[in-house]
Amino acid sequence: MDYIIGIDGGGTKTEAVAYSLNGQELAASKSGYGNLLINYNTAITHIDECITACKTALTGYTCKGISLGLAGSKALSKEEIKRYFYDRYQVEVGLYDDAMIAHEALLHGKDGILTIAGTGAVSIGKKDGVYEYGGGWGHLLGDEGSGYWIGHQALILLTKEHDQSRPYSSLSQTILQHVKADTIHDIKKFVYSSPKSEVALLTPLVVNQARNHKQEASDILQQAGKHLANMTLHLYKKQRFEGSCLLACKGSILTEVPEVFDVYKKACEKEIKHIQWATQRVSSAKGAYQLFMNEYK
Amino acid sequence: MDYIIGIDGGGTKTEAVAYSLNGQELAASKSGYGNLLINYNTAITHIDECITACKTALTGYTCKGISLGLAGSKALSKEEIKRYFYDRYQVEVGLYDDAMIAHEALLHGKDGILTIAGTGAVSIGKKDGVYEYGGGWGHLLGDEGSGYWIGHQALILLTKEHDQSRPYSSLSQTILQHVKADTIHDIKKFVYSSPKSEVALLTPLVVNQARNHKQEASDILQQAGKHLANMTLHLYKKQRFEGSCLLACKGSILTEVPEVFDVYKKACEKEIKHIQWATQRVSSAKGAYQLFMNEYK
Repeated sequence: MDYIIGIDGGGTKTEAVAYSLNGQELAASKSGYGNLLINYNTAITHIDECITACKTALTGYTCKGISLGLAGSKALSKEEIKRYFYDRYQVEVGLYDDAMIAHEALLHGKDGILTIAGTGAVSIGKKDGVYEYGGGWGHLLGDEGSGYWIGHQALILLTKEHDQSRPYSSLSQTILQHVKADTIHDIKKFVYSSPKSEVALLTPLVVNQARNHKQEASDILQQAGKHLANMTLHLYKKQRFEGSCLLACKGSILTEVPEVFDVYKKACEKEIKHIQWATQRVSSAKGAYQLFMNEYK
Repeated sequence: MDYIIGIDGGGTKTEAVAYSLNGQELAASKSGYGNLLINYNTAITHIDECITACKTALTGYTCKGISLGLAGSKALSKEEIKRYFYDRYQVEVGLYDDAMIAHEALLHGKDGILTIAGTGAVSIGKKDGVYEYGGGWGHLLGDEGSGYWIGHQALILLTKEHDQSRPYSSLSQTILQHVKADTIHDIKKFVYSSPKSEVALLTPLVVNQARNHKQEASDILQQAGKHLANMTLHLYKKQRFEGSCLLACKGSILTEVPEVFDVYKKACEKEIKHIQWATQRVSSAKGAYQLFMNEYK
């Protein structure tokens, strides 16, 4: 039997799934991050590990293609990445970014907008075969509404309370405890010496405070919902969906924090007359497989 | 003759000046950055170079003390730094942060608030011998009104115009040219691969656009002025200066961009009845010398 390996390479892990040519899942494997911008060689090693695991599991079958969906791939030479995998495995290689494969997986090739809010935040829309992006500027330039942004807003609140000699809010006290900060300067050390994911991990504290009716925490989550909706809506207007649109969400902030999702949903519904929500969860690796099949069949 | 070496170790250069015990300048030298957080050993080497140059120039005289005013020193072990220089030079060692020595130099030991706006932004106030800080949270948490912040705001404007399908403003066009960006993604690459100082270097473009009556650029500079004034005023209230205060400014944003300073000055004057402006420029190394003399005389 022939098969295609679809790969979802993100900032924390790489997932590979081997599919038969009619889309049946045959084998799967996982490894470390596949985002080439973190460390090119290490990411390549992780992806190779996944491919090798699938090939080993399917000994006797023939790999006909590898479809890579990689975070950070837009900033690098597509030709170089494709050539490496072609030279190594001697099969057709497809290369897409992680947002495209997620869109394909969740919206099944249909037009519509996917909004992803995890550590970062980005919207990707497809209309008449054309992809457009909204947001996705990373933690320095944007990513409003993302997990990093939520944690970051809580930290900024803390510094403002300090500078303005206001008593620390309940949210700020919780963060000081969580970071094990003896003084306010420990907060600064935490921010400048921690990876972005550590800041994003403050989000559960904010959510917990909001559920305990702490206004400052609720405000941050509401703003996150509005920011994410604006990102979606700018793309909705840019791509002229005009009246109706298929929307999907991915990432813990939108799928696991109803305080954010409810605000997001309401703000979208205010602007878009007919929304259809794509709610079926499908692995992004399936999206990589599908894009490859569309391109090379 | 006996002398004291005063040192101003910043993020780009280290300056050392040797003073006689009555404050007369005897010798001076410069080297690379003295901020220990950039690279501890390299910064120490730069500081040692400056000390050695002064000692060599003053052969036959006796060094009685070294007074270090170092950026980033608050985050490190003061004892370890002082011990290193004591062991090496066998003299009394004073250690202060860069904002304290600048305050001492410009306000001559008097109570009042110094606001520094270069690549970063911080206010330091002294009242009845007690120092307090406002801002100074670095580029991730604050530094509103700094050179980095001004360049950063211009870049955010550009990304918003892109996301919202608005035509690029004159300011954005200038920045795209300056960064030699073929596509908007080159802007992202620029931000994530450049040191903060490169982003701060966009400030002259913003100033130039404001002088050509471009509203979006003027808006950023006005906001910078207001942010810096707020930083000063929070400290003014926190330290209960109540009605009158001596104010000083340092750093290119406040001393070389009148569009920012004028807004800053007006906002301060609105809240503080009697302001006295300290305008005399004195090397921060003199502040380091003076603090040492106060502590060890």
